[in-house]
Amino acid sequence: MEDCIFCKILNKRINCHKVYENDSVLAFLDVLPMSPGHTIIIPKEHIADVESISDAQLAEMTRVFKLIGKAMMKGLEVEGYSVFLDNKSAANQHVPHVHFHIVPRKEGDGFERWAQSAYEVGEAEFITTKISREIDG
Amino acid sequence: MEDCIFCKILNKRINCHKVYENDSVLAFLDVLPMSPGHTIIIPKEHIADVESISDAQLAEMTRVFKLIGKAMMKGLEVEGYSVFLDNKSAANQHVPHVHFHIVPRKEGDGFERWAQSAYEVGEAEFITTKISREIDG
Repeated sequence: MEDCIFCKILNKRINCHKVYENDSVLAFLDVLPMSPGHTIIIPKEHIADVESISDAQLAEMTRVFKLIGKAMMKGLEVEGYSVFLDNKSAANQHVPHVHFHIVPRKEGDGFERWAQSAYEVGEAEFITTKISREIDG
Repeated sequence: MEDCIFCKILNKRINCHKVYENDSVLAFLDVLPMSPGHTIIIPKEHIADVESISDAQLAEMTRVFKLIGKAMMKGLEVEGYSVFLDNKSAANQHVPHVHFHIVPRKEGDGFERWAQSAYEVGEAEFITTKISREIDG
């Protein structure tokens, strides 16, 4: 897609530090890493979000994050990694081309997310129903 | 596994708010949600981490997060969701039974991760090589 920065990387109009490539996916370093080695995995086809990707294509992306994660632990001598995918702009998906982030992790590295809080009485049942009744599969 | 809290949920020794279940995976609400509806997906077999799960089992977990994410957006009226998986204790994997988190997201909800910083000259090339040379596939 013309204005998609990841498509520009795929079309070699923008350079990247390629970590891995096969027929269907490309993996490259994030230019603003959360830790050294932070890698992005994208499908080679322009696919905006999780709703638009096939199960097989998503499975191939996960197969590749597994490969890369293993390589990170060995190559970067880190003890683990975090994988995340933000779906839709409300979730901070800044590039509308579906992608996984893989972030190398070390003990005590200070990675933080939202503060957590427990459900109130009855709230969990209510929310469970609101999700589960919408599941097709 | 005897001491695994997720296996206790699978064995019904601990209750959960079930969002979805099939032959191979179970999805239930996190008791300390990052946002209302925050769901955990686990395989029904005790599998410690990404290194121990088969590609097919991981693919099934991702197929299910796709189903649940879609249901969340409809059921909770959120505009997106974030998915993450922390692999190994160094990455804050608190339960050694591989799992995805799915967190419903809304515009401006303040979800934050590490502060980002750019690579220094030459650093990206160095790190890329350290990862890519370890990839088997």
